[in-house]
Amino acid sequence: MRRRDDVSELVETACGDGPGLRKARAVARLISLVEADSPALREVAQALAGRTGRAHVVGLTGSPGVGKSTSTSALVTALRARGRTVGVLAVDPSSPFSGGALLGDRVRMGEHATDPGVMIRSMASRGHLGGLAAAAPQALRVLDAAGCDVIVVETVGVGQSEVEIAGLADTSLVLLAPGMGDGIQAAKAGILEIGDLFCVNKADRDGATTTRRELRAMLSLSPRPEGAWKPPIVLTVATSGTGVDELVERIDEHRAHLESSGQGRQRRLARARREIEAIALGEVSRRFGHLSGDSRLEGLAADVLGGRTDPYRAADIVLDQI
Amino acid sequence: MRRRDDVSELVETACGDGPGLRKARAVARLISLVEADSPALREVAQALAGRTGRAHVVGLTGSPGVGKSTSTSALVTALRARGRTVGVLAVDPSSPFSGGALLGDRVRMGEHATDPGVMIRSMASRGHLGGLAAAAPQALRVLDAAGCDVIVVETVGVGQSEVEIAGLADTSLVLLAPGMGDGIQAAKAGILEIGDLFCVNKADRDGATTTRRELRAMLSLSPRPEGAWKPPIVLTVATSGTGVDELVERIDEHRAHLESSGQGRQRRLARARREIEAIALGEVSRRFGHLSGDSRLEGLAADVLGGRTDPYRAADIVLDQI
Repeated sequence: MRRRDDVSELVETACGDGPGLRKARAVARLISLVEADSPALREVAQALAGRTGRAHVVGLTGSPGVGKSTSTSALVTALRARGRTVGVLAVDPSSPFSGGALLGDRVRMGEHATDPGVMIRSMASRGHLGGLAAAAPQALRVLDAAGCDVIVVETVGVGQSEVEIAGLADTSLVLLAPGMGDGIQAAKAGILEIGDLFCVNKADRDGATTTRRELRAMLSLSPRPEGAWKPPIVLTVATSGTGVDELVERIDEHRAHLESSGQGRQRRLARARREIEAIALGEVSRRFGHLSGDSRLEGLAADVLGGRTDPYRAADIVLDQI
Repeated sequence: MRRRDDVSELVETACGDGPGLRKARAVARLISLVEADSPALREVAQALAGRTGRAHVVGLTGSPGVGKSTSTSALVTALRARGRTVGVLAVDPSSPFSGGALLGDRVRMGEHATDPGVMIRSMASRGHLGGLAAAAPQALRVLDAAGCDVIVVETVGVGQSEVEIAGLADTSLVLLAPGMGDGIQAAKAGILEIGDLFCVNKADRDGATTTRRELRAMLSLSPRPEGAWKPPIVLTVATSGTGVDELVERIDEHRAHLESSGQGRQRRLARARREIEAIALGEVSRRFGHLSGDSRLEGLAADVLGGRTDPYRAADIVLDQI
C-alpha cells in the first residue's frame, strides 16, 4: 500500500510548517494528483477532510483584455504586504499562468515566484464536461489545507463553465475596463448578478468614471433586499498598484459581511452541494467514457443518424445500461 | 392528447412548403419547446426522427470583437445569393442576436428579417450544466428538418461549453482579426485544432497579412496525415462583403472533402453519440435537481463542510440514491 502512504505523507508535508520548498512541492504534487483525476484523487480528498475551511476564496473574473493577470498579481502583492499567505488558481485559456510552451509573459507573476507565502497554480479550462468543475474545488481544498489565508481564483468571464467556477468563490470580484458599452456587455454576460465587488481597472484611461457611472446605474436596476450587501465599485490601475489597497479593504468588508449575516456558511454549504453533484456527474460521465468503444453506443448513434430512433430514446437505453 | 397533436401538426407545418410566415412561426415554436426543455421535447425529437441529415452545419467561432455577427450576416447574404436557404443559431452571450431587452444592434441582421429563406434563432449560453449542450443539437434538428441547406452556428470562442457547441459543426470556421498575438491567443485557446477553415476578418486593417502568416506558421506546426484537409485561411472584410464569396467556396470545398473522404459520416456519428451522452447527462443532472431540496443532500453537504466526510464519499452516496 505504498501509494496510500505517499498521499498521507504528502498531505502532512503540504499542511505542515516545514521548509518552504518541500511544502510547495508537496502542494504542487497534490494538485497534480487532483487534476489528473488519478485514482489517488479520492485518497487526497479523504486525507484533506477536516483540514479545510479556513481560506477566503476570491473569484476574479472579466473579459479578455481587462487586466486579470496584472490585477491578480497586484492583489497578491497587497495581500502579502499585510502578511497573509496567498494561493492563486488560474483557470483561463488566455491567462499567462495557464497552458504550456506558448507562455512568454509568465514573467508578470515572476516577482512572486520565489515567495514561499504565495502558491500559484494554473488549470486548463478545456477537457471533458464536468472535468474541471470537479477538479477545481479539489485544488482549492489543497491550497486551503496548505494554509492559504486567501485564494484568488482567476477565470475568464465568458462561458458557462467559467461562471460555474466563479461560483466557488466566497467573494466574486468582476473586473471591467473603461470603454463604451462595457457595462452593457457585462449585463449581457450575466456577470452583474454574480459580482459582490466590481473593479474598473485601467482607471487612468479615458472613460473610467463613465464606466463606473454606467455600472452603478445598471446595478441600481436590480433591487436588493433590506440589509443586503451593496456591491462597491473600485477604480484601480493594476500596473501601478493604484487602488489595490482599497480593493483589499472592500474584500475584507465583504468577508466580514458574509460572516455576520450567516451568508458565508450558506455559500459554503451551497458550494459543498455543487461539489458533490459535480463529482457524481463526473462519475456518470466516466461511465459513458467506458462505453465509448462500445458497439451498442455506436449502434445507437447510427440509428439516430439513420432516423430509426431519436436521441432521447437512445439516451434512455444508455442510462439503463450504466 | 391535444398536445401530441399540436407537436405533429407543428412539425408538419415546419417541414412543409406552406406560406413562409406560418412555417417560420412553427419553426420558432418548435425551437422554443426544445429550448425550454419542456415535456414536449421528447415528442418533438420523436417527430423529427428521419426528417433530418440534409443540412450542412457551419460553426462560426472567435473571440469577442472579431466581427462574428457581421460575418454571419455577410455569409447569409452570400448563401442567399446562391439560392440556398439558411438557418442561423447564435449561441453567444455577447451576440446581438441573443438575449433580450438590452439589444440595440439587432438591426445588423435586419436585412434578413423579412426573407423567408432565412431562419434566425438565438440561444443563451447560460443555464445549467449540460442544458445548452442538450438543447442546441435539437434546435439544429428543427432547422435541418425545416429544410435549411446551411445552418450557421455562431458561438464565442472562449469557454468549454462553447467549444462543445462548436463540435456540432460539419465545418468549423474560426474567425480572427488582425492584431499582434491574436494567433498566439488562438493557439492558447485551443481553437487551432478545431478549425477546418480560418478567416482573418477586418482585413482592411493593418496587420492582416501578418496575422495570416503567423497563423499559417502555427498551423504548419501540427503535422497532418497524408491526404488530410489543409485548413485554408481567407481574408475578409465582412462589413463590405469582401472575400465572403471565397469563404463560401472554401466551405463548399470542405463539404465535398467531408463527403469524399467519408469523414462527414464519421463526424455525424460522433455528433449523434455526443448528443445521446449530453441528453443522458442532462437527465442525471435533472435527477440531482429533484434532490436539491432533499435533506439528505443538505446533510451530506454539511458533513463535507464539517470535515466529517469527503465529497467523493458523499457523491457515492448520492449516486446510490438516484
